[in-house]
This record gives sequence, structure tokens and C-alpha cells, in this order.
Amino acid sequence: MQLIFLGTSSGTPTRRRNVSGLALSLRGGRDWILVDCGEGTQHRLLRTPLSTQRLQAICISHVHGDHCYGLPGLLASAQLNGRTAPLSLIGPASLWDYLQGVIASTALHLDFPLHFLDVDRVPAGLEIGGFGISAWPLSHRVPSFAFRFVEASVPLRLLSGRLERDGIPRGPLWGALQRGESVQLPDGLCVDGADYTRPAWRARSVVVGGDNDCPDLLGEACSDADLLVHEATYDEEIRVRIGPEPMHSSAARVAAFAERRGLPHLVLTHFSPRYQKGGGRGLPLARLEQEARERYSGDLWLAEDYDCFELDRNGRLQHSNLLR
Amino acid sequence: MQLIFLGTSSGTPTRRRNVSGLALSLRGGRDWILVDCGEGTQHRLLRTPLSTQRLQAICISHVHGDHCYGLPGLLASAQLNGRTAPLSLIGPASLWDYLQGVIASTALHLDFPLHFLDVDRVPAGLEIGGFGISAWPLSHRVPSFAFRFVEASVPLRLLSGRLERDGIPRGPLWGALQRGESVQLPDGLCVDGADYTRPAWRARSVVVGGDNDCPDLLGEACSDADLLVHEATYDEEIRVRIGPEPMHSSAARVAAFAERRGLPHLVLTHFSPRYQKGGGRGLPLARLEQEARERYSGDLWLAEDYDCFELDRNGRLQHSNLLR
Repeated sequence: MQLIFLGTSSGTPTRRRNVSGLALSLRGGRDWILVDCGEGTQHRLLRTPLSTQRLQAICISHVHGDHCYGLPGLLASAQLNGRTAPLSLIGPASLWDYLQGVIASTALHLDFPLHFLDVDRVPAGLEIGGFGISAWPLSHRVPSFAFRFVEASVPLRLLSGRLERDGIPRGPLWGALQRGESVQLPDGLCVDGADYTRPAWRARSVVVGGDNDCPDLLGEACSDADLLVHEATYDEEIRVRIGPEPMHSSAARVAAFAERRGLPHLVLTHFSPRYQKGGGRGLPLARLEQEARERYSGDLWLAEDYDCFELDRNGRLQHSNLLR
Repeated sequence: MQLIFLGTSSGTPTRRRNVSGLALSLRGGRDWILVDCGEGTQHRLLRTPLSTQRLQAICISHVHGDHCYGLPGLLASAQLNGRTAPLSLIGPASLWDYLQGVIASTALHLDFPLHFLDVDRVPAGLEIGGFGISAWPLSHRVPSFAFRFVEASVPLRLLSGRLERDGIPRGPLWGALQRGESVQLPDGLCVDGADYTRPAWRARSVVVGGDNDCPDLLGEACSDADLLVHEATYDEEIRVRIGPEPMHSSAARVAAFAERRGLPHLVLTHFSPRYQKGGGRGLPLARLEQEARERYSGDLWLAEDYDCFELDRNGRLQHSNLLR
């Protein structure tokens, strides 16, 4: 399972960070899912292996510009590049209003079907691009949601010791049992694949939050999750100084939540442009990292643009950056 | 007079070229005007000395995404960066519909006033940021316009030989005449500044076209102009092969027009992404340059992103690139 960060700034882009965008895919596949689509997301894609032709769904957490102003241009470019395959779009109802308005007023013609799904009514068992997808309401100035992505299909591994112990002959019968089927043995006995298999690994799951001032709302979504990606717009001191109105989280608040839930991996993103790596003319981003580390004992990352995280079948997270 | 190209690709961005955006300013001033605002224009600005706080007007040639999808994000960032000064917006009526729709559906709050001017009804004598601005209808799939920018105010130079010949005494009288005033001489005679001054240089003018398949429509707009910036989406062979439907110009067609009008400087832009400098996996951009040079004997340029052109008081054009 692979995550590529296309933008990690909140509100406005900086020279180093674009506004929000995150690509999810299953390693080995070229299909992918986009979470949020700030202005310039399609520009970021030009420096990744991802193609808009293989994009399966776009999930928009909420309809603020830094999370959705790149959507019309990305769709227009997919059209100009010859896309014909349907595309799923999941987001708040106002997202559809926004997009329909833009399409009508700017003569944007799309030959491929857009399937819009209101994020408030995502059907149970929704599966796209190899992911089971569910949505979870958050707390922000406008309706905002997190998305939980679970690996939809994990192959079964045969329990060969048990098969041999029970004298089930090797060959086509083992194959049928591995596919989870029920089979009849030569002696007439019926056996069930479920008794002789188990998933080759635990299905991986990732939760990607939208803007949110209350991480605790994600308690259930994060149950058993491998990784949480969450905004940490400020450090706690700045959050208190600004006051609650913007309805964002501090790094401290998210880290404390992740610690309480025992989450193995936490990736913070969506940093106020006032923070800069190394400080520069702004505040040092290290302020966020420090207060998060003080509260969270798991595997912590502060995302940068083009960061690539691979969550392997054993739940280990590997980091690289596409530009380095 | 300075022009900075923020985007020179048509339709979709490439790694080297963004979609349309062009900044105009008068050398020495920090005020500027933006012509077209494709997605990612605000990102390009981050690598220029231009500030959205000093932006005086945005002129949008037509409401296709590659010319206007960067507008909401640029306004949102100006707001987040504390802009309070009014901003003029000139474009087709549908631009206002587009922007109002986006503002309403994405909770975009702007504290600074936006003054919208329908490009079809630009008042005579409109002056913004030191430029006289007029608009000229073109031929495209949607209403599209060119903008002519004329240096609004050129200081007057005293004709000292004539003053001395007529015995007008040096001193405060000369100053008043240089300001263009009428003054009474000690002997009671009234003289007029217009008779003893002339402009220190000829007012410079630039015409910036939107998408357009008929350069001849710009005959009057280009009268006496120093420089034309015009789209050259294809070379003539590709234009013929694609057919007239997209309603774009070839380099050949624009060059031939500029030659007929005797324009001293021509800058081509808005190239189809199929062209690449040096060729690469696409067609060589040199095809456009070659067919333009065959038809135009003036000073020809094919714009690149971050290209900066300075038109001096003698009408000479100097080229540099902000990234080199």
C-alpha cells in the first residue's frame, strides 16, 4: 500500500509545499485514488508515475479551496489526455454544486462519466481500486470528513500442516480449498476452505483525515488502523493564540489522540505556511515535531511534498521521496 | 514596461510550461496587472518579485479553464495574505458567473472589494496601474478578447530652444509650462504648455491576445503597437490536420499578420503540449519558430515560462529569464 503526498501546506501554497493532495495505491498496481485536490495537484502529478488515466476515484474531504480548487483542471486535463473510463467522485453535496457550476460556466466538456457519491451516504461495502472505502464525519467550519481505506482483498494462505494431518490429498482439492471453496473428499466427507486457510496477511488500513479540530471523532475509524494521516496546522501555542475559530488541530492534539489509540504510524500534514523547515523567516517546523514526539511514542512523520510511504504486508512503513 | 510570462502552454500544463498567465508592469513600479490566470498562476508568482498585494487588475481573455481556473485560488491567497485594497477584474460576463458560483459553493470569503468590469463594456479612457486599457473582440469557441495596454502617462520634455527663442524667462514659468499649464508672461501675453513641450518618449503599447483563430481582427488594436503577444497553438501543418474546430492560430498565421502590420516585436505563446523544446517525445517547437521566421522579418520570440521582456522608452525589447 503506497501513499504519495502531493501537497502538505494549508491555505496557500509555498515554494516547497503545495496545498492538499494525497495519492493512494496498492503496490504493484497502477490504479490509484486521490484524496483532496488543491490547486496545482495536476502539476504535482507530472513528477510522479501516476496517470490520470488510471485514477479510480477522487475523495474530497471538504469544500474549501485548498482542498478542491485543483479538481476542474485535473478533470479537464484527463479529458484532453483522452480519458474515457468512468471516474468516481466522493465528497460533500456542495462539491457537486461547485463542480456543476464550474462545468456550466466555463464550457468544460467531459466525455467520461463522473459518478458522484455524497460522502454522507457512502454505501456499506463500497470498494474502488482494491480499497474498501468508508467516510467519517469530522469537526470543521464546513462539513468535513475522513476516509478510511482498507485493503479489500487479501489472498488466503493454505494451512498445509492441518491439511496433511487430516489426510487431505495434495492437488486440485488444495487449490479449491485455497480459493475458499467447499469440496467433497474422495471418502464423501465435505470440508470447507475456511477451516484450512487464513489470510496471508492482515488487511492493511489507512485513515486520511480532512480538516478537523477534534481528532477524537476518529476513534472508531482508527480502530485497528495501521496509519493515520491527519492535519496538524499549528503547534499548540499558536493554536491557542489564534483561538478556536479556524477549527484546526495542533500537532500536540493529534499526537495525543494517536497515542491513546495505540496507532503504530502517524503522518502529520497540512502545515500553516508560517512554519518552515529550518525556520527561515517563519517558525521552525520542528516546533510541531517536538510537541508531537513528546506525546506520541509510535512511528511519527511530518510529510513533505513528494514523500512516498509504503506500508508493507507486515505493517511496516518505509519512507522515500520521489524527488531525492 | 515589463512583461513576465507565468505560463505558455495551451490546455494542460507540462513539466516546463504552465497554462496561461502574463504579468505586466511599468518598470520601477511594483504595481502590476495580470492577464489570464490559469491553474497554478499563484504558484508561478512565488518565484517572481510580484506580490498579490500590489496587483491592480486581472484581465481574463476568455472563460476556458486554462485561462481562469487559477483565479479563485489566487484571490483566496491574496485574502489569506491580508489584502484589503480593491481589485479590478475585467472579463466576459460568464467570468463573473463562474467566480460567484465558486465563491458561494466553497465558502470563499474575500474582505477586499472586487470591481467587475464586463469586457464588452470597458469604458473609453479606462486607466489602471498606469496603463490605459482597451479590449478587442476575437474569434474563438467562446467569447474571447485581446487587451491593449498603453502607457497612460509620459512626462513632457521642455522645448528649451523654442522657449529661449521666444524670450520666455527661465524659472517657475518653465516649470508650469512643463506641467502642460497655460501661463501669463510678464508682458501680459498668455502662452500654452502644449506649444513648448512634447512627450519625452512615445507612449509604449502592447497588445495581448486571447485564444483566436483570426489575427486580422487585431488590425486596429495593433495600430502603432510596439509588441503583440499572441497564441500560436500549432504549426500550420498540424492546424490543417486538426481542422478549424478548436479555433486556434498557427504560428504562420500570426507571423504573417504581424508582418503585414509592420509590428516591430512579436512574442508567440500558448503552445500545444505536443511541442517540446528540442523535440523530446513530441514535436520540435522549432517547427513553429521556423514557419514564423519565414513570414515575419521583425523581432520574434517564442515565450518560455518566467521569460521577462523589457520594452524600453526607445521601443527596444530586452529579454531575460527569471530562473536563469
